[in-house]
Amino acid sequence: MTTTHSPNPSVATSLPFIRSELASLQAYTPHPGGTEGQSVAISIDRVDTNENPYDLPLEIKQKLAQHWVEAIESNRYPDGGHQRLKAAIAEYVVESAGMNVGAASPLAIRNEHRLLPSQISVGNGSDELLRSILIATCIGGEGSILVAAPTFSMYGILAKTLGIPVVSIARNADFEVDVAAAQTAIRDRQAAPIRVVFMVHPNSPTGNALSATELDWMRSLPADILVVIDEAYFEFSQQTVVAELAEHPNWIVLRTFSKAFRLAAHRVGYAVGHPQLIATLEQVRLPYNLPSMSLAAAELVLQHRLSLLSVLPELTNERDRLFVALSKFDALKVWRSDANFLYVRMLEIENPELAMAQLVTQLKIQGTSIRHTGGGLRISIGSPAENDRTIIRIGDLLRAF
Amino acid sequence: MTTTHSPNPSVATSLPFIRSELASLQAYTPHPGGTEGQSVAISIDRVDTNENPYDLPLEIKQKLAQHWVEAIESNRYPDGGHQRLKAAIAEYVVESAGMNVGAASPLAIRNEHRLLPSQISVGNGSDELLRSILIATCIGGEGSILVAAPTFSMYGILAKTLGIPVVSIARNADFEVDVAAAQTAIRDRQAAPIRVVFMVHPNSPTGNALSATELDWMRSLPADILVVIDEAYFEFSQQTVVAELAEHPNWIVLRTFSKAFRLAAHRVGYAVGHPQLIATLEQVRLPYNLPSMSLAAAELVLQHRLSLLSVLPELTNERDRLFVALSKFDALKVWRSDANFLYVRMLEIENPELAMAQLVTQLKIQGTSIRHTGGGLRISIGSPAENDRTIIRIGDLLRAF
Repeated sequence: MTTTHSPNPSVATSLPFIRSELASLQAYTPHPGGTEGQSVAISIDRVDTNENPYDLPLEIKQKLAQHWVEAIESNRYPDGGHQRLKAAIAEYVVESAGMNVGAASPLAIRNEHRLLPSQISVGNGSDELLRSILIATCIGGEGSILVAAPTFSMYGILAKTLGIPVVSIARNADFEVDVAAAQTAIRDRQAAPIRVVFMVHPNSPTGNALSATELDWMRSLPADILVVIDEAYFEFSQQTVVAELAEHPNWIVLRTFSKAFRLAAHRVGYAVGHPQLIATLEQVRLPYNLPSMSLAAAELVLQHRLSLLSVLPELTNERDRLFVALSKFDALKVWRSDANFLYVRMLEIENPELAMAQLVTQLKIQGTSIRHTGGGLRISIGSPAENDRTIIRIGDLLRAF
Repeated sequence: MTTTHSPNPSVATSLPFIRSELASLQAYTPHPGGTEGQSVAISIDRVDTNENPYDLPLEIKQKLAQHWVEAIESNRYPDGGHQRLKAAIAEYVVESAGMNVGAASPLAIRNEHRLLPSQISVGNGSDELLRSILIATCIGGEGSILVAAPTFSMYGILAKTLGIPVVSIARNADFEVDVAAAQTAIRDRQAAPIRVVFMVHPNSPTGNALSATELDWMRSLPADILVVIDEAYFEFSQQTVVAELAEHPNWIVLRTFSKAFRLAAHRVGYAVGHPQLIATLEQVRLPYNLPSMSLAAAELVLQHRLSLLSVLPELTNERDRLFVALSKFDALKVWRSDANFLYVRMLEIENPELAMAQLVTQLKIQGTSIRHTGGGLRISIGSPAENDRTIIRIGDLLRAF
């Protein structure tokens, strides 16, 4: 075929069947943005995507590889029901909430602290679940979403691709949601009322878990507003609202295997919520949304969760060490974090956004990749050696500024 | 948490934040519907999902397993750019079209028969690409879709979950799209005009490739109607429209690795089309939509395509053998097929739908699973031994009817 196509794909509106509002949207830039192959070939400290710095142990990788060769038929569609994985997730979620509500051991969880597989939906990362939630609630002018900036950018990006209005309010100096502004937005909005509120626990990029004020406000929201609580970083914070889900049919919790469980490559997230909402998400999702290998990987890491999660104290200790070290630089303001990353801003600079952009660029040249987002810098917690290099390199660059 | 939730998840409308129109929708039933684990444990001939009956050869599976252990970091996000896979797909697509347009060998493909990676988008199965196309064109009341029944059910299912009207027209006795009815539907529709037409080449479940009449009609469609040509079964038909894509910016071809390439477990589909449309699909898709293992699997099978596709003549010969054998049963009407399945109807029966449902049930008890869909039976081509059993079992059951 002769390629007579226009060389400028950005002007999408010239194809008349494409929705015009898409032309003005920015896509999420995947990190490490299109630098495929580089992850293995070039030695760079990738502390820009909040991944766990450690791969699965070799014996677990070999076990999964053997399972793939011997038990997974690559020519057959994956199981589209996910029942076994959902049951394993339900057990883990109860265990995680039981620890949180103060039980001395998982054995202390009472019988009524049960969770059924029908309260779980599994997605191609949390991203797919976010999209399903938006499709189930807001498209076609039925509703808007409320986010509090700075926060995870995908909520707004996914909403906009679906033509859903995004109402963005501010956070206070401690990065708590401005509850008064949220109430005003909910009350004043006439067309496409606020139908979904996105809360992040702890928030990205700022690292703060939900406060008592925020939790009280969430509890006060009416039944026709869905509250999404994104607990992607739960394993680092050990703070969760799942124990309250039964009292709030309009709450849904999102979790992921991409962070603490080291499965970013396999794309598995899950939602926990009211069975009717979960049934709707199951109806909306793609029928074979998870490859067989991803299902098997998630089941395997849950079986090995005690050993895999035993590295988390090292990471949270490293986080606090990094906090102390970076706080010593006068040019930086560093916030305490409940997650596996720190949020940092540059102080007393005429153009902080430009200065931070320059810092990120120069840091990458030195071999450390961090993320400039939400008016600050987000630095993931890496291995101790990576964190050492992060501290030294930032210090060197700040002295040169 | 105490599970106080309602036991009936089907009444989704009682949660007020869920769109009411979703309550009436049926979800696609994944096959083998929720029977996880069964695929390995129970010996049943699964000729109900048009899979390739053969798994990858052991040496290729071991190669991919080794790659996973040694080169894929499970803790790191997949490459979100897909550039290497797109380049390999572009090469394969050109090769496949070159064979089709009558070139004596791939070497005969001229220089202008090039395809750029910017004309390819890769999805979590074709399903994700179908959804992205619908999001890019029709949501929010901007358009409707046109399908011709019987056809692949996912077009309508995905559209309805997104609130997009589905206009369904009939096919003639040879299962060609009723072009006059299509023209009337396009002309008469006022609100939400027809924005996308779904053509399947060859069609599922009926097995017929696009006819000259259908192709002429597609060429005549105006520039503001997108024509999706689903070539999921291209490798079996060896008929493709990709050579015409450059002349039609409003055409897009979908293909999959799930059928001939034996990768149903890994969920990889792709779209070939105008760079501006592809750029929009890239903007709409989830940024990390494909696990690293799925990307690696697709690249590997393309490298081994000559050996992997060398089994196709066996399958198409088996298809024709099955056609002859089933045609001998007076109770059946069997159609010729360009795909890896046959479409069959029961004749001279008072209630053919009920009779076919009974046949499917009894056949499954005997160990052969086929699909009852679109007013007929769809029987995938299995291994020679599976096809022998299909013939014998259907014959036994028909004699007992």
